[in-house]
Parts: sequence; C-alpha cells; structure tokens
Amino acid sequence: MRKAYIIMGVSGSGKTTVGQLLAKQLAIPFYDADDFHPKSNIEKMESGIPLDDEDRKPWLLKLKEEIRSWEQGGVLACSALKESYREILSEGNSIQWIYLDGDYKTIFKRMEARNHYMKPELLQSQFETLEPPSYGILVSVDQTPEAIVSKIISNIQPMKRSEFGIIGMGVMGRSLAKNILRHGFSLSAYNRYTEAEKEVIPSLLSELQNEDIQGFTNLEAFVESLVTPRKILLMIPAGSPVDAVLEELTPLLSQGDIIMDGGNSHYKDTQRREKLAKDQKFHYLGIGISGGEEGALLGPSMMVGGDSLAYNIVKVLLETISAKDFNNKPCISLLGANGGGHFIKTIHNGIEYGEMQLLAEVYALLKPSLSNDEIAELFIDWNTGETGSFLLETTIAILQKKENKESLLDKIWDVASSKGTGTWSSIAALEQGFPATILTAAVMERAVSNTKELRTTLSERLDYESFLATIDTEKLKEAYQFARLLNHQQGLQLIETTSNSEGWDVDLSEVVRVWTNGCILKSELLKTIHPIMGNHSILLEDTAILKKLKHSESAVVDILVWGMQQRNALPCLSASLQYWYGIITAFSSANLIQAQRDAFGAHTYKRIDAPKDQSFTTNWKTNG
Amino acid sequence: MRKAYIIMGVSGSGKTTVGQLLAKQLAIPFYDADDFHPKSNIEKMESGIPLDDEDRKPWLLKLKEEIRSWEQGGVLACSALKESYREILSEGNSIQWIYLDGDYKTIFKRMEARNHYMKPELLQSQFETLEPPSYGILVSVDQTPEAIVSKIISNIQPMKRSEFGIIGMGVMGRSLAKNILRHGFSLSAYNRYTEAEKEVIPSLLSELQNEDIQGFTNLEAFVESLVTPRKILLMIPAGSPVDAVLEELTPLLSQGDIIMDGGNSHYKDTQRREKLAKDQKFHYLGIGISGGEEGALLGPSMMVGGDSLAYNIVKVLLETISAKDFNNKPCISLLGANGGGHFIKTIHNGIEYGEMQLLAEVYALLKPSLSNDEIAELFIDWNTGETGSFLLETTIAILQKKENKESLLDKIWDVASSKGTGTWSSIAALEQGFPATILTAAVMERAVSNTKELRTTLSERLDYESFLATIDTEKLKEAYQFARLLNHQQGLQLIETTSNSEGWDVDLSEVVRVWTNGCILKSELLKTIHPIMGNHSILLEDTAILKKLKHSESAVVDILVWGMQQRNALPCLSASLQYWYGIITAFSSANLIQAQRDAFGAHTYKRIDAPKDQSFTTNWKTNG
Repeated sequence: MRKAYIIMGVSGSGKTTVGQLLAKQLAIPFYDADDFHPKSNIEKMESGIPLDDEDRKPWLLKLKEEIRSWEQGGVLACSALKESYREILSEGNSIQWIYLDGDYKTIFKRMEARNHYMKPELLQSQFETLEPPSYGILVSVDQTPEAIVSKIISNIQPMKRSEFGIIGMGVMGRSLAKNILRHGFSLSAYNRYTEAEKEVIPSLLSELQNEDIQGFTNLEAFVESLVTPRKILLMIPAGSPVDAVLEELTPLLSQGDIIMDGGNSHYKDTQRREKLAKDQKFHYLGIGISGGEEGALLGPSMMVGGDSLAYNIVKVLLETISAKDFNNKPCISLLGANGGGHFIKTIHNGIEYGEMQLLAEVYALLKPSLSNDEIAELFIDWNTGETGSFLLETTIAILQKKENKESLLDKIWDVASSKGTGTWSSIAALEQGFPATILTAAVMERAVSNTKELRTTLSERLDYESFLATIDTEKLKEAYQFARLLNHQQGLQLIETTSNSEGWDVDLSEVVRVWTNGCILKSELLKTIHPIMGNHSILLEDTAILKKLKHSESAVVDILVWGMQQRNALPCLSASLQYWYGIITAFSSANLIQAQRDAFGAHTYKRIDAPKDQSFTTNWKTNG
Repeated sequence: MRKAYIIMGVSGSGKTTVGQLLAKQLAIPFYDADDFHPKSNIEKMESGIPLDDEDRKPWLLKLKEEIRSWEQGGVLACSALKESYREILSEGNSIQWIYLDGDYKTIFKRMEARNHYMKPELLQSQFETLEPPSYGILVSVDQTPEAIVSKIISNIQPMKRSEFGIIGMGVMGRSLAKNILRHGFSLSAYNRYTEAEKEVIPSLLSELQNEDIQGFTNLEAFVESLVTPRKILLMIPAGSPVDAVLEELTPLLSQGDIIMDGGNSHYKDTQRREKLAKDQKFHYLGIGISGGEEGALLGPSMMVGGDSLAYNIVKVLLETISAKDFNNKPCISLLGANGGGHFIKTIHNGIEYGEMQLLAEVYALLKPSLSNDEIAELFIDWNTGETGSFLLETTIAILQKKENKESLLDKIWDVASSKGTGTWSSIAALEQGFPATILTAAVMERAVSNTKELRTTLSERLDYESFLATIDTEKLKEAYQFARLLNHQQGLQLIETTSNSEGWDVDLSEVVRVWTNGCILKSELLKTIHPIMGNHSILLEDTAILKKLKHSESAVVDILVWGMQQRNALPCLSASLQYWYGIITAFSSANLIQAQRDAFGAHTYKRIDAPKDQSFTTNWKTNG
C-alpha cells in the first residue's frame, strides 16, 4: 500500500480539477469519491436534499477499503468536511490531507460558472458543516489549478534530495538509473508525461520500489528534488529534443548546476549548447556513452568533453558506475573541452561501422563454403587471441542463434540501416581533409545494401556462375587484423586531426584506454594499441605494428584475389590495402593531378626543386 | 590621349576632396593644379597677395601640356575661374568641365574650418574674379562629397545602356566578357576598387578599347548603366564574397532584374539567396559554369538552376556564348529550380575528381615501365576512340611538356590540393545515403597525397624491393573505361537521388548533353551515355552498358592484381570493382550487420519472410 492524497474542501472548491492534475504529475491514478456514492445518495443530492451522516457512513467505509487496495497509491477528490469523516478514511491508511481553502463568496462565484449536480443553494449548508482540518496541507483556491498543484507538490515532496538526476527513462536512461542505484547513490528520475509514455515513471518506481529513487513527470519538482549544485544527465534522443528540454530546463537551474548530455549528439550542437549554458552560468558536459543497454547497466565506457571544474564534481559518481579497464581503472576520462567527448564517441561509432563491415566481409567470404555454425566455430577460435573482441563475440552468438532449428541470421533482410554517427564520421573526415577511407567504405556499403531492388535485378540479368575459392582461414584472420589495425589507425588519427584544429588537446592513449572496456569497440586490439599511443601520435610509427602490417600484406592480397574470384564485395578490406599502398608510397602520382589542375584551371603547382611556399603555373599547351 | 575631368571652382569649394574621390571611382589618376605652380606664385599666395593673370599664364601653359601627356586620362582639381584660363587648358585637350558651385557664405564657412595656405580674406577676390562657365556639369557644394561624385558620375556616363553586366573581372569574368563582346552584345563590367585590383578595370578597358564595353568601379553607376530588366552575372569567389556583393547590390536593383551567380557556390547557399531575392522581387539564377578560362572564352558548358521566367529572358545571350554539342545545340539548359544548377556543377566536379584520379592511377601503373613520352604515345592512341576526352588530351600535353629537355611533370610536387566541390560531392552523397564511392575515393586520395612526410618516412622504413609487373595496356584501357562508366553512373545517380529529394525534376539526359562540350568532363563517353539516359534513369539498366561492364570485369581484376604486385595505390579503380560487386549481389552480408545492430542496440531488423513494414528484435544471447 502506498500513500493516498485526498483533496478535500467544499463542493465547488475545484477538487476534481486539482486532483486530476496532481495525479498526472505524480503519475498515479485519480479517483473521485462521488463515484463511490450509493445510488440513493445521488438521488437525494440531485433532488436538492442534503445528505446526513447516516447517508454518508456506508460510503465512507467503502472508500476506506478502496484506498487500501490502491497499490500505486492515488489521488482522491473527496469533500470530507467533518473530522469524523476523515477519521474513518484515515483508519489503517497512509493519507496526506490537502485542504482547498476558500470563503463562501469565492466558491459561490465559481459554482455559478459550472454545471454541477448539486444545487448552488446547498453551498451554505456545506460551509455550516465544514470543520477545517488543523493538519495536512492548506492551499488557497484563489489561484490557477497549476499554481495550486505546484504548491501541493512542493509541500508533499519529501525533504530528502537526490544526489543525481536523469532526464529520459528510455532503454539507456533506465539502465543507467539501475547502475547508479546499485552503487548506492540516490537518484531522481524524470520522464515526460505523454499518452505513449505515461506508464514510464510508475512502472520504473514499481520495479525499483525498494531503491533510493524518486520519480517525476513534473520538471520543476524534479529539479527541486536535487542537491545543489544539481547534477542532471540527459538521456534523450539527439537533435531537437535536447534543445527542447534545455529550453524548459534552463530557467529552473541555479548557477553552478551541471547538465550532462549523454546522448549521441553532434559535437557542433554540443559546442553551441555549452556556449548557451555558460551565458546562463551553469556547466555543460557532452558525454559520449557506449556499451548499449548492457553497458549502461553493468558499466559503460564514457567519453567526456567540457570543463574540468564541472567534471571533477561528477567524477566520483561517473567513475563508480563506469566499466573498469585492465588495471581496474574506470573507463571514463575528460578527453577534451567543448564537444570533444561527443566527437570521440562519433568516431568510436565510425570505427565500429568499419569493424562491423569487416566482419560482414569475412562472413561473405566464408558463406559459400561454410555453414553459419562452422563460421561460428572458426570465430570462437579467433576470439581467444589478438582478434578477440566484443563484436566478434556478438557475431558468434548471432551465427549460432537458431529459430525452429534453422539459422535466424539467414532469415534477416540484407538491407542495413544507420542512425547518423557513421555518416557524421565520414563527413568530419571530409571536412578535416583526412582520408578515413575504411569507415567511409563501411558507411557507403550500407548505402549499397539499400539498393536491394537494383542488386536483385542486376544479379538476375548478369547470371554469373558461382565460383568457390579455397580460402585459407589463417590468411583471412591476418587480413582481417590488418584492416582492423588500419581502421583504428584512421579513426584515431582523425580524432588527432580534429583535436588539433579544435584545440582540444585530446590524449589518444587515454581515448584508447577508455575504449578497452564497456563499449562496443572493446577488444584485445585496443589493449595492444593502448601502450603504443602513449609513445606515438600515429599508430603506424610503432615498429612492431609496421612490421606486422608489412608481414600481413601478402595475406590481404591473397584474400582480395579470392574475393574477386567469388565476386564478393570487400570494400573495407580493399580500402585498407589501398590506403596502405597510398601511405607507404614516397612518390605518388598526385603530381599529375596538380599538373591537370594547373592546365585547365591555372590552379598552380609546387616543385620538388623549389621552396614549398612558391607556386608555379605553366602554359601546358605550348612546348619548348 | 583620354579624357581629363577638371574640377573647378573657388578656393575652398572642395575640389581636392571631390577630385580624389572621383578619380578613385573612375579608376584614373588624380592631379592637383596647385602642385604645378611655380615657386614664386606659391610665395605670393602665402603672403596673402592675389596672383595676377601674368603670374598664372606659365602655370596654365604647363598644365595644358601635362594634361596632354596623361595616357589614361585623369582628374584635375583646378580653380580655373576665368574663361580665358579655361580656354588655355582646353586647347587640343578633351576636357569635361565640372563646376563646384557655392555662394560666398557657404564657402566662407567651409574655409574657416580648414587650414589652407591661402588666407580666407582672399576669398572675396576669388568671387570677384569668378566667371562661372555656361557649359560642363554644375554641382552644388552644399552636399556630401560622395553625393557630389555620384551626381558627377551620373552626368559624365554616356546615356547608352548595356545589355548585360558582369561583376568580377577575374580570369573567368574577363574571359566571359570577351566571349560576350565577340558575339556583339554590349557589356558593362564592374570590378571593386582596392589597392590590389585598382588596375583591373583600366587594363580591361585599355585591352578592349574598340569593343562595346563600359567599365566601372562604382556599383551604383554600373547598375545604372544597364538596360532593365537588368541582367547581372556575378563572377566572384563563392562564399561570403557573394553575400557581401548581394547586400550592396540589392538596394540598387529594380523589380524583375535578374541576378546570376556563375561561381562555384554551394547549392544550399544558392537556395537561401534565391529566397532572399524573391522577397525583394528580383530573380536569382544559380549557374554552374564549366570549361575553365578557355571554355569561358570560347564557349563554356552551363548548368542553370532557377525559374524559367528569368531563364527565358537571358536564354538567347547565354545560348549564344555557350559551347555547342554534337548537334550544334547550345551546351546550356535549365536543369532544375532553386540550387539545382550549382548542385549539378558540384557533381560534375566530383566526377571530374574521379576521372583525374583514374588517370593518375593509370599513370602510376605505367610509370615504372614506360617513360612519360611513351605513356603520352599510348594515351594519344586511347584518345582517338571511346576513351577520348578533354582530360586525356590535357594529360597528353602534360606528359609531353618539357622544361630544358626534361619532363616538367617529374618536377611537380606530388601533393594534390582541392577547392571544395569534390568534398561537397562526397558530403552530398553521405547526406543522401548514396554510395558515390569512386569520387569519394578520389577526394580522399588527395588527402592521402597530403601526408607526404608520413609517406616518405614509411617508405624509407619499409624498404620494399620494387617489382615490375607486365601490364597489358589493352586490359588497362578496358579497366580504365570500366571505372569511368561506374564513376559517371554514380555521379548521375547521385544527381537523380538529390533531384528527387529536392523536387528538382532534373532531366539526366539533358545534363549529359550539356556536358558533351565546353566543360572539363567533355568526352566520347558522355556522347555514348547521352541517348541511354533518355531511356533509363540508371545507366546500368542499359543492356549494352551492362554487357560491356561484365566483359571488362576480368580485365579490372587483372589490373588490380598487377597493381598489387607493384604496390600501386589504385583506390578509384578498386572502388569501382567493389561497387560493381556490391550492386550485382542479390543477397549481401548486410543481414549480419542488421543482426549485430539488433544484438547490441536493439535496433531491430526486417525478415526475408515477413512484410517489410514489420520490425523484429531478438535476444541473441539465449538460444532455444
């Protein structure tokens, strides 16, 4: 049994309106005491005959039992004019009395404007009967229902304040909430009240009824429930929803409060919002959170961008709930100011696109000759060593998954969707002029998968005979690892490049450490890379890595040749080799491109035998 | 000898200020008659003694000779109070007299506020001497110098109005101006007056002195010089300069005037500007112009976006100056509303990036075994048939170009620059979710070329032995053509995709026709593609094209294998084959990607055996 809130007062004081609004904001049911009157009472009232105490007794006893049965508690609108009536209802129930107070004149005016089944002339008898309570919450009716409810909420909330608040109780918000509570922190949870989401807070409170959590659908009450400086984490969809919540939230905040955006926001949005926050004298941290539902629950990897002052205030809590690395250090770090955290999360996802596509390419190469279970067996072997990763593990589970004894994977429609961060990564690379070719190939291959109709038509029209290549799985593993190394190299260098142009001063070694656990990218490879990035800003500068890549090159060539024999699209594997050839070529053919640009557009060129601040142009048509 | 403008009037009427301003706007030199006084005259004036006519005679004769020597003409500030003085100066010179008119009181007040070496008391004698001219331009001094100069300019400009105006006399603007004049249209040319560009208009007028051209550095006078509705083409750098000019230009325009932006503007900027233009009731056309300096001069290819009402008004002139296609039809067309022209030009350039990189890859493959002259020989052969193109022709000239008997190409620094449109094309593809993989590979390979230092270091550290593959040039030609076909296919389909989402209704067949001459992309291939795009929206739907691609596939494989043996980076050729494999695969491995997304993020998937509007999600960890 939970608390019942009884709104009392004379007829016409607004009990129903206020009660419904209060119920909505507390996210508990609303009841009207009048609905429980026996028929005889209703007839009496409709005939203008006042009820006497004998009439009321069965009704009050029935109500008392009703209240007891409300598992989630509830709000009840009930006149409860006499102390004796209230005593009946209180018996064995936990009740918060709320008295809507108003004088005869005020109430009479209100009643004239309404159609109520009790005649206004009976109001005088109500006032004669009324015994105002000397306890509970007294609120004057002489204000808007919203103001009355606000006053009530500020009175009924426990004085206890939570250490941390989360706005948005979707999959990720909910998991993070449980993670925070499990570690002994007190939490306030807010979710908006809409038709589709009205059950979110009640169901959360019901699931976590023994935990140190308060639930809200009223943003003002949520904010009031937090210890200052407030620590509020937004777990809502990126884009305009974040701006909408911030607009509502901003006037409720105090100087020094800390707002954290834990969604996949675009880093430029985060930069913009941080500026607005600074103007309002509160802090703004953009936090990239990776690990999906499970990571959020058990410990995610978190990439923070913002000022260290604010970060230090939330650090203990965030470190406690985060994943732990190989040294048991938390997988969270302040990685850069002003959008840096969200940018790094974006590139984390971009690398993830590459890793997923590489696994799809390996699967495509093996599919003609091996069953899904056989591929899973091979991957189980790969997963024990340096190729081990969370995504490989996930892929094994997928390959083994059966539905009615058949592989579920084979039933899945081969059209890949995406949600933005892959595309953002590619666009960032283009804007920075950095060749992140592997993740870009992965993003674009998803677009190729979307041309299902064209693919089907062309496949039918071309009618190729299938060809089965003999694929050496050891070489395949080497080629896979080669491409992964370069995919990580590109992603990390893209972070470095952007960090330089944005002035973030990102520590790549720390980025890699944060990624070693909790996130989707977590892998043995990241553990190998971590110490290297402490010594080099470019992964390829490491001798062992370079040696390994050189050694694997011929395996990649062989795999690509086999892939061409089978006509498998291997855009990421192929892009990795082409990138490799590009960056190991001292003298490229770009001199021809510069000559062409000068020939048709007079764009000028530089010379190998002249200082690089000098530009030359030539009339290429004449010779001599 | 050109015209001299003499600003006359009593001392203190503002001759120097007005003269300097006028000279600046006419872009001709300014002179002060006082600088030519003999020393004795200056001493007299400084002592407060009025000069007599005997004093003035040698000075006026000297001035007359000076004026005669001004090759560009000039503005002279000179009191020239008496008719007899003016007669001396006019003798044998072409002079426009400008009289600054003011009464004694006005001028006296002005003089009090100045330090002039002639004492104010002498003003009275000036007025006594003054014989106001009955000819020339009379302007009241009782207004700002700017207003005075505006009045003068509107009087001295010929009443003749030009049919067309160009703002921006850089390389492209100048060439288009000559093209327009050659076809018998009258033209007004404007260029801003800055220290660096002050010679632009004078030198243009001097070069084209027998042509029907008027030159301006005053925007108001430029606008006034045009027949209404005015047809004004902007040939200025894309980005903020266009906005700056539009801001200055807009208040000078009349309803119905037509502004054309002929630069490489981003299509979203053009859409924004067209909206602003509509609010101001003038028309805005975004015109992509391709062909470089030579194309602009002899006939460019032009891609127009905007409303047909405005286009029809400028159509005759633009068609006249444009290149002509295989049927002698003008290579210009209204290809879409609202930014469509600039978008198509952007993708034209994107395809161009692919074409240039493909030539660079062919060159890279051949360089180890052939000299530049030998490669040129091979390309001369290629240029006669279906692989013929302007870019191949340009490349031949480059390969043959010698400097002191050595190949100039070998002296060019192998770091490729770019100016934006390639990057924009890639970003557009990403935003549209369309796999323009070949042009993207080309854009990113330029970024690879920029890592010169890393490339050099890695090349030295890896120390590979060189390997010479035996490359079959017939297969190379086939592979080159295969990649070109798919590069064009991707670019055209990206235009189609964007046209659909923007509602432009672009006719791809017309796009291809416009590209068959005048532009950098012009080629035999476009002539082949043109009739096909009349029947298909996707090039690959054509049976002959599909057959050709299928036939060339093995050549591409062989070339890529040879490339791998030589360790040549062939990102575009490679991307073309990977794209081919992608789009001819009916059942791809994207089902795995969807399963992975569902496994770690509950992103759901669709099934091959269920309607495509249904989504499924699975707990992949448990089996059963």
